[in-house]
Amino acid sequence: MALCTLLTDWGLRDYYVGAVRGTLLRLAPETTLVDITHDVAAGDVEAAAFVLAAASPAFPRGTVHLAVVDPGVGSSRRILVAEAERQTYVAPDNGLLTPLLGAAVVRAVERQDLYLPTVGHTFHGRDRFAPVAASLLRGERAAALGPAVDDALRLAMESPTRAPGHLRGTVIHVDRFGNLVTNIPSCWLQGKVRRARVGGLEARRWASYYAELPPGEPGLLPGSLGTIELALRDANLARTAGVGRGERVSVEVEVRDNPLR
Amino acid sequence: MALCTLLTDWGLRDYYVGAVRGTLLRLAPETTLVDITHDVAAGDVEAAAFVLAAASPAFPRGTVHLAVVDPGVGSSRRILVAEAERQTYVAPDNGLLTPLLGAAVVRAVERQDLYLPTVGHTFHGRDRFAPVAASLLRGERAAALGPAVDDALRLAMESPTRAPGHLRGTVIHVDRFGNLVTNIPSCWLQGKVRRARVGGLEARRWASYYAELPPGEPGLLPGSLGTIELALRDANLARTAGVGRGERVSVEVEVRDNPLR
Amino acid sequence: MALCTLLTDWGLRDYYVGAVRGTLLRLAPETTLVDITHDVAAGDVEAAAFVLAAASPAFPRGTVHLAVVDPGVGSSRRILVAEAERQTYVAPDNGLLTPLLGAAVVRAVERQDLYLPTVGHTFHGRDRFAPVAASLLRGERAAALGPAVDDALRLAMESPTRAPGHLRGTVIHVDRFGNLVTNIPSCWLQGKVRRARVGGLEARRWASYYAELPPGEPGLLPGSLGTIELALRDANLARTAGVGRGERVSVEVEVRDNPLR
Repeated sequence: MALCTLLTDWGLRDYYVGAVRGTLLRLAPETTLVDITHDVAAGDVEAAAFVLAAASPAFPRGTVHLAVVDPGVGSSRRILVAEAERQTYVAPDNGLLTPLLGAAVVRAVERQDLYLPTVGHTFHGRDRFAPVAASLLRGERAAALGPAVDDALRLAMESPTRAPGHLRGTVIHVDRFGNLVTNIPSCWLQGKVRRARVGGLEARRWASYYAELPPGEPGLLPGSLGTIELALRDANLARTAGVGRGERVSVEVEVRDNPLR
Repeated sequence: MALCTLLTDWGLRDYYVGAVRGTLLRLAPETTLVDITHDVAAGDVEAAAFVLAAASPAFPRGTVHLAVVDPGVGSSRRILVAEAERQTYVAPDNGLLTPLLGAAVVRAVERQDLYLPTVGHTFHGRDRFAPVAASLLRGERAAALGPAVDDALRLAMESPTRAPGHLRGTVIHVDRFGNLVTNIPSCWLQGKVRRARVGGLEARRWASYYAELPPGEPGLLPGSLGTIELALRDANLARTAGVGRGERVSVEVEVRDNPLR
Repeated sequence: MALCTLLTDWGLRDYYVGAVRGTLLRLAPETTLVDITHDVAAGDVEAAAFVLAAASPAFPRGTVHLAVVDPGVGSSRRILVAEAERQTYVAPDNGLLTPLLGAAVVRAVERQDLYLPTVGHTFHGRDRFAPVAASLLRGERAAALGPAVDDALRLAMESPTRAPGHLRGTVIHVDRFGNLVTNIPSCWLQGKVRRARVGGLEARRWASYYAELPPGEPGLLPGSLGTIELALRDANLARTAGVGRGERVSVEVEVRDNPLR
């Protein structure tokens, strides 16, 4: 039984998600469909890239991930099929696959024979992406869909940096609870935290889980993706502090003398 | 394996959807459940009718569609089973099936033996609709559920009209992105658009996909259901223009001399 | 084929639900996943307890219910496995299972060998709860997961009371439509309703379904869980009356002479 995840910015109110689910099940009836999310903000390719890369490793080998956040729908932007870690991703060539491209073989789909006859060019999710994913779900090899390419569009993504006593990074995601997920690896934090700053917010606490923080005082934690998170216990830190995605984060840590010296 | 879609106005926050999913899987264990949507506005039968008719054709033959937007729950309104295009629909007799009735054989359910024993009359979704759908999913023929009827309730739906140089119709749906879906067939638009009007809004651009529109300028496109759509690139036209469902749309087109004349 | 429901407060916007779905399907590939809800308000254990207890009885025997609303994630709170009515529940020991505990055999999980290696302690849903549920879905007996315990944490839940002519209870849930679900059994209401009071609201109508109420006038009905509900036809009573969960409800009924006396 083939497994297909769905990730879009279509919401669940319209007929779009239903039509794509139906198309996939019509063209590849043995498929199990699983949603990652349909609540990406409209056209927010960066958020889609984060959520896809964060959720997809949990799925079994052989999973096909269909991700359509596609403000360029109908234009000549390509449809990509990427193979990474024994999973396969189908997405528009607009940066959505950026975090996965390092380890992936990427192909540009050229099999127009797969596309459905269509009444317009505003719903490639149903008319093009779904049949491409369905062909993979029926067992087609990615190599049969188009040539390998090395020029997939990549989002500019800043890397975190570290210097003695100082870590710098970015808020890459704000979750439902208002926790600020950064791109600074938790394992970089070897010494005691002196102070973390993000926007106008300052945090001095380090905890290993939310309920360990004193109420009302923001703190840092090792988050579920291996990076530092900032949080406020039982409250929404992003809203309280007015901090959002893209905000710079700096963390000062105590520099200890090298015990071997 | 039987396929059953769900469409309701119950939202996903309450126990209602869970209880119906459980009931269907208890009574018809081999069923694959797929949501069309649960986010129809409370009691909005017209929106439900639109989304159901737009999404369901994508599904495979044999699919059972269970659609419950039912402000009259508990009253004597009938439960209908409609067969159209080799799919089967179960819904209250309140207009929800209107767009599908033309091609359908419609029956009024009389098999009260299928209904679950119940503690009240406020949740026919669980107690009546789900067992009726489950009987179909287990292989029961629609004809065994009740007699064919020809008086199913229909929503008043205005048809679009055309005259030389002038198309008229209605906004029948506003999608998540704020695009205005009309009921005017895209193929009616043979000449060059002079001007489209809806509410206080005027649009002069014609494009084949959203990203082809210049930013900030509303335009017309052939939408994904075969009808004209109005949209604003990377923005929410419905909100910007203050236009909603039901608003009249008029499109003026250049009348070309008949080349054969 | 094993059936697993999911109930969380994670929303559908983040990567959390996707990661847990993927983990379950990776560890127990034959599983059918079904959502009860992911829209419990953040950290609202009481709401989660209500929805789980209301939805789960509809599911077939053998269903595994995974419910994670867990403000104490990462702390030493236990993971419980409860067997009741031939279904199995996996949840944190924070009161979420309260309504089910009466009839259940409850165990505290001690099988740390099942837990996934992890980068932090903020996502036990993925790293601990999902593998515990997956072991049950693969056929492990609950008894093999940990010892039976009798000190599971229980939410304080007030019971409804009745005296001649007077029923008292609490609003235990406000649904999407604004209906007020109380904990007063509908069958207690033998006589004619004189008057129901909740917050500043007074209702005198008794109906058996919503559309039987006169528009604009609040009324009482026998709800879908066997308890009395207050509602306003085609409108949101909770919002109109400014009444929420936890509000006290009193119902005065006519006391009839005992006809046997």
